[in-house]
Amino acid sequence: MLHLCGKPHFRYSCLMFLVWVFQLVGLNSGFGLDSGLNQSLTYIWPLPCEHTSGNETLTVNPALSLSIIGHGGSFRILREGFRRYKRIIFKFSSGISVSRNSRRIRSLYDISALRIIVKSGSDELKLGVDESYTLFVDKTEGKSIVWETIIEASTIYGALRGLETFSQLCAFDYTTKSVQISRAPWYIKDKPRFAYRGLLLDTSRHHFPVDAIKSIIESMSYAKLILMHFLSRYLHIQNCGMVLTQNGSAIPSRMRVELSGIHVMAEVDVPGHAESWGAGYPDLWPNATCREPLDVTKNFTFDLISGILSEIREIFPFELFHLGGDEVNTDLWASFVLTDCWNKTRHVKQWLDKNKMKPKDAYRYFVLKAQEIAISKNWTPVNWEETFNAFAKNLNPRTVVHNWLGPGVCPKAVAKGFKCIFSNQNVWYLDHLDVSWDEVYYAEPLEGIGNASKQELVIGGEVCMWGETVDTSNVQQTIWPRAAAAAERLWSTEEALSADNNSVLQRLQYFRCLLNRRGVQAAPVTNYYARNPPSGSGSCYWQ
Amino acid sequence: MLHLCGKPHFRYSCLMFLVWVFQLVGLNSGFGLDSGLNQSLTYIWPLPCEHTSGNETLTVNPALSLSIIGHGGSFRILREGFRRYKRIIFKFSSGISVSRNSRRIRSLYDISALRIIVKSGSDELKLGVDESYTLFVDKTEGKSIVWETIIEASTIYGALRGLETFSQLCAFDYTTKSVQISRAPWYIKDKPRFAYRGLLLDTSRHHFPVDAIKSIIESMSYAKLILMHFLSRYLHIQNCGMVLTQNGSAIPSRMRVELSGIHVMAEVDVPGHAESWGAGYPDLWPNATCREPLDVTKNFTFDLISGILSEIREIFPFELFHLGGDEVNTDLWASFVLTDCWNKTRHVKQWLDKNKMKPKDAYRYFVLKAQEIAISKNWTPVNWEETFNAFAKNLNPRTVVHNWLGPGVCPKAVAKGFKCIFSNQNVWYLDHLDVSWDEVYYAEPLEGIGNASKQELVIGGEVCMWGETVDTSNVQQTIWPRAAAAAERLWSTEEALSADNNSVLQRLQYFRCLLNRRGVQAAPVTNYYARNPPSGSGSCYWQ
Repeated sequence: MLHLCGKPHFRYSCLMFLVWVFQLVGLNSGFGLDSGLNQSLTYIWPLPCEHTSGNETLTVNPALSLSIIGHGGSFRILREGFRRYKRIIFKFSSGISVSRNSRRIRSLYDISALRIIVKSGSDELKLGVDESYTLFVDKTEGKSIVWETIIEASTIYGALRGLETFSQLCAFDYTTKSVQISRAPWYIKDKPRFAYRGLLLDTSRHHFPVDAIKSIIESMSYAKLILMHFLSRYLHIQNCGMVLTQNGSAIPSRMRVELSGIHVMAEVDVPGHAESWGAGYPDLWPNATCREPLDVTKNFTFDLISGILSEIREIFPFELFHLGGDEVNTDLWASFVLTDCWNKTRHVKQWLDKNKMKPKDAYRYFVLKAQEIAISKNWTPVNWEETFNAFAKNLNPRTVVHNWLGPGVCPKAVAKGFKCIFSNQNVWYLDHLDVSWDEVYYAEPLEGIGNASKQELVIGGEVCMWGETVDTSNVQQTIWPRAAAAAERLWSTEEALSADNNSVLQRLQYFRCLLNRRGVQAAPVTNYYARNPPSGSGSCYWQ
Repeated sequence: MLHLCGKPHFRYSCLMFLVWVFQLVGLNSGFGLDSGLNQSLTYIWPLPCEHTSGNETLTVNPALSLSIIGHGGSFRILREGFRRYKRIIFKFSSGISVSRNSRRIRSLYDISALRIIVKSGSDELKLGVDESYTLFVDKTEGKSIVWETIIEASTIYGALRGLETFSQLCAFDYTTKSVQISRAPWYIKDKPRFAYRGLLLDTSRHHFPVDAIKSIIESMSYAKLILMHFLSRYLHIQNCGMVLTQNGSAIPSRMRVELSGIHVMAEVDVPGHAESWGAGYPDLWPNATCREPLDVTKNFTFDLISGILSEIREIFPFELFHLGGDEVNTDLWASFVLTDCWNKTRHVKQWLDKNKMKPKDAYRYFVLKAQEIAISKNWTPVNWEETFNAFAKNLNPRTVVHNWLGPGVCPKAVAKGFKCIFSNQNVWYLDHLDVSWDEVYYAEPLEGIGNASKQELVIGGEVCMWGETVDTSNVQQTIWPRAAAAAERLWSTEEALSADNNSVLQRLQYFRCLLNRRGVQAAPVTNYYARNPPSGSGSCYWQ
């Protein structure tokens, strides 16, 4: 038998032949940048505020080193972030031996060092924390001290966003087996359009193992989302415990959240959706057969809410707290839930009569009392829009109104001076599987708000992953890639996007493949129903 | 505002209250062993050959130590396996600080040490490697040297299977925040029913990032599957490269495969399904417009196959090699592919006439020649059943016949003395989404084979994950949990299963939740179509 590869008249070894087939055939469903992608596009998601690029291709040293300059503060978060991104960037070249980062080795690569300059000494992760950064990537030739890549940011969280952008510029080249940055030099100046860029995760309908939640938080940082709204209606804090409670294992998890620069906001939904509380304390139910809304008449109810919120306060450092208040006061629910349960329980009915209240007044009373409790614990309360729709003039002026029922609510809320979060269910409820990526993408949180000072009251938006038909098996492909469409809407300015020459779909398809490469099960972009399988064979980039 | 938790008349702190609600309500979709599971069942998947258990609950020390005794050989694989399983077992208690494994700390736990005894000094991973093990879990009281848990095995691979079983006995208890083993003492004696327990992964229709492939290999070890049949029809070895090629990063990946004790078998499918080769060497095509089957007339064709197989041989140490040979010789294909392409290409037609061959003779000639090449490289050839169906008497007697078209082929193959792999597409093709878990489960590889010596020729079976509608976003929930149903059929003896009292569904549902906890996106078990979302809210265990 002939051993073909030994023959000198073959220019390539067989392995090279295989590589060659791979590249030529075009059947590759691969991820290399030579896969027929339009190289003139800027494959950064979400698109930065400003950027310029060139025509050079630079190689990046797997032994990339980090240097941080700044006014003190905790750089631990930044160093850990750098390590995390280094693992992502060099995942495919993990086996390439880098014995020492000697001058000789360094000279083989165009980029061997990353300098991060942080202006602020504070590492507090607040809503509206300065996430701006500039990123400069170039080759420095003939200089003894090389700082080819510089990220400059006000805060470590801006620097983390810059690292994410840097990681997206890096692509593994299958031919040279090295990480490359094409179209260098790059100059990127970036900052978010909205401070609040959220994802709601409903863990009340199905259990999510801790690792699944961690993976989702990690994936959010890839799209520069900044907030997970953590909904656990049945209050099984213990269930999500390892991430968010105070037990022994909470601290590393909290660190992890910090490390990704992601806020976590909790929701305790009262007075509706709280029936399960009564399993522990049946006194919370109006009566044994009519279990929600919670008994509005007892001090005990509010004492317990206060106690629970105190415990939660220590676990959730974030300044916003979601008090729910939804699905109680629509006409349907008003007549059904309130009348049915409060009116038909003798002691509640007596209390209502004594206080000259109708059920809807008691609902207002309950919501406002819960708001007071949250505010007393140094929280800013968030409520679903039903509370605003029912008694806007009574709401605490610090209330953040959380839109969901449809369009047009944020304009009304900001007109009355309230802050607002956009989550119009027609476009940003991820469990609505028939909403296509572009319907998500072209939703506009500021629609109907012309006045600049009023626009500022829209703090951002949130895509909502309700849990009826998602569990660990399919949550990631239900969230992604559509959450990314909203993420760009919330991060990128209209100016930046308008210069994008209709490349959105191609860029989003690229980003979905990037998510896949990073271990996130993002579904094909253009499927008719979200999270459907790919319709047939082919490249990740085109489906 | 009252701070409820400070009040002495509350027996529990609020956090405990939350825990309590969680446990009482029964709305928990949790994973704790107190979730209404039937505690009398043996939640080990696949079910071991023999086992006895008791009524004690033991706690396991997060600082569990390992001691290996044996006749030399590489224990690196075993130590790494132990570390991997320790991460899995103590995932939920990762934050619990274990300062030192002092005698005092050890005394807090029932199990603090694991002893593994390995008889063989060889760590060769061959088909039919001895995977038997015994596992003994008990509490040893009042003894100075404690060896509460012992795994005894002939080979390190048996020991790895024992570790998997041990890890499945361990469950995190949310109340005590410790890892517990219930129903101790355990005595388990186990070994596989079939040596070949495979999963085909088709990476030719969609690209799978390296991490996705690694995750699948890892998940296979949870179900004690032992072989990944790696199909890459378009030969983009480079594409899967990081796992399986010889480039710089291959070595760690190969180690990883070894570490899980999983074989990898490659397939190069000739002469059909190889059209893409001609992109590199158009001479391989009969003519420019008629591209498969490959040109049977040229030495070049077989020289190239030989060269490619030589390269692959160095990458794939496993003793079986799959030569395909499918979808050429069915009536449809015979008339279409062979006649159409070989008959209509002038120089091929002339060659056929000169050699007095019909296309089906040339197909046989091609397959047999490819077999010779594989055998010359010290491989045992595997062919899809079409080759057996068409010219059984010409096939090399070492050929392993790979069934797929339907039932009844293995009985014919073993009757003629061939080894056989069972993959009846009606039940074990995972892309057939309408095949329910129990149809997969109750498929029997030995059906129709009464003679014991003939039964031994059925080396096992393989579930096939063809790739038309799976990619990174949904491959895991298409594979799992149904692949686990086949895995138990291939591992567990009929005697062991018959004593199982119809608990299969409950045990499989438990195993799917176990997979979820370990980061595998296994779909609900009882959905009408595989990989459908859960139909509604509820516990992982019941859907």
